[in-house]
Amino acid sequence: MKRIAIGVQYDGTAWHGYQKQDGGQTVQDQLELALAQFATVKLATTCAGRTDTGVHALEQVVHFDTDLSRDAHSWVRGVNAFLPPSIGVRWAKEVVSDPEGDEFHARFSARARTYHYVLYNNPTRSPLLAGRAGFCFRPLDVERMQAAVAPLLGWHDFTAFRAAQCQAKSPVKLMHEIKIERRGELVVFTVTANAFLHHMVRNLVGSLVYVGTGRQPPEWLGQVLEARDRHHAAPTFMPDGLYLARIDYDPKWQLPLETTSPLPWF
Amino acid sequence: MKRIAIGVQYDGTAWHGYQKQDGGQTVQDQLELALAQFATVKLATTCAGRTDTGVHALEQVVHFDTDLSRDAHSWVRGVNAFLPPSIGVRWAKEVVSDPEGDEFHARFSARARTYHYVLYNNPTRSPLLAGRAGFCFRPLDVERMQAAVAPLLGWHDFTAFRAAQCQAKSPVKLMHEIKIERRGELVVFTVTANAFLHHMVRNLVGSLVYVGTGRQPPEWLGQVLEARDRHHAAPTFMPDGLYLARIDYDPKWQLPLETTSPLPWF
Repeated sequence: MKRIAIGVQYDGTAWHGYQKQDGGQTVQDQLELALAQFATVKLATTCAGRTDTGVHALEQVVHFDTDLSRDAHSWVRGVNAFLPPSIGVRWAKEVVSDPEGDEFHARFSARARTYHYVLYNNPTRSPLLAGRAGFCFRPLDVERMQAAVAPLLGWHDFTAFRAAQCQAKSPVKLMHEIKIERRGELVVFTVTANAFLHHMVRNLVGSLVYVGTGRQPPEWLGQVLEARDRHHAAPTFMPDGLYLARIDYDPKWQLPLETTSPLPWF
Repeated sequence: MKRIAIGVQYDGTAWHGYQKQDGGQTVQDQLELALAQFATVKLATTCAGRTDTGVHALEQVVHFDTDLSRDAHSWVRGVNAFLPPSIGVRWAKEVVSDPEGDEFHARFSARARTYHYVLYNNPTRSPLLAGRAGFCFRPLDVERMQAAVAPLLGWHDFTAFRAAQCQAKSPVKLMHEIKIERRGELVVFTVTANAFLHHMVRNLVGSLVYVGTGRQPPEWLGQVLEARDRHHAAPTFMPDGLYLARIDYDPKWQLPLETTSPLPWF
């Protein structure tokens, strides 16, 4: 039995999230259907991090076990032939257990996850960014938002930014970095943590926008965190601008991770 | 009677081109439907340049005549409220005749048109660029393509790059500029001419790709032009990467044209 890891990119606009469900209109359903067509046998898959309806992935990592011997290139080309244009396998790699017997697992071996939230900041919406970016017509002060994030770095209870339906065992996560950059009319939020609660990035972005437009002072974000009450934070921001961007693993797995730029078109 | 000019942006993926037709699945049909809903009266529109199925526009320019008095902002917000997310009005401006009685016309007043063709150059397709960029898996040599374009600049008979169904009166056009730039894994072609024949940009890109991959030498492009025979050129490239980017008008019309960067997300 071999364990194969693959990098999967998708435009989530048309899909009901990553995780499979009745009806088959999810990324995982489409992926397992394509794998079964290529492999001529059902293959169960495990992903690094589930994404919601309308959320995209630059590089989701997925693993599955198989007896088949195919080179990496064949997995990529072969599975892609059965996938719709909005979902694609970018790379494949057989991952072998390390000398101590430790086995690679897309979810449990992940050390950190990075998301981008792309926001179009202009008085008028952009049709070419529909489904691809959030939209804020009020001018956003990036420096003001940057001044707000320091209290969120490190280990914290992120209950204030957690969706009611979140199934995580603990609301305590390790926030590594929150980067906010302006690129012309786009504002890009890059958030890295060991793991995320349900809707955590979209809730964070909603509250940061309150700071960026001047509705709340920068100190407010830390106060919201401290309060540990979802009702203190701003509403959840739309899914359109959210991209699962990168999963960090121990280099010993030698995955051909490719995300070097925040978005492929920058 | 007032003449109003508007800037229209659209993602052409889901539409059967710009020009209206039975069935209503075109950009013009959707635009005139939204205008009629906002103005509560039918308004006939004229555009600067029709685009094909799957082709996008960063800034199409359209005019119409109306008795209604609405400020520019109301036209934008009001019409956008009735448009689908993939089509939007970016600006509106009343254009008055000049002191000599010359009247603005979206098509006839246009002095030049600029298109971008965006091409994803990578061994594996990108789902996030599906419908938004052409795809070439063979490495492209940008300098080699740049070396090929000089013979096409100036007035020429572009019959070699003209679709059979083209309705233009003359195949002779004035080519102002062909710029080819690499931005990471994207190759962006920017083509400016006084006017274009049907499929001209996509046919040009197809032939430039033959040069960029090494299949043809740079000199070949000029020879294809000279031959004035469509059969000498490469096949028409896919519409996915084509964007109507800019229409040039006499500054006397004072249009609030906004295209400053090649694409809004660069």
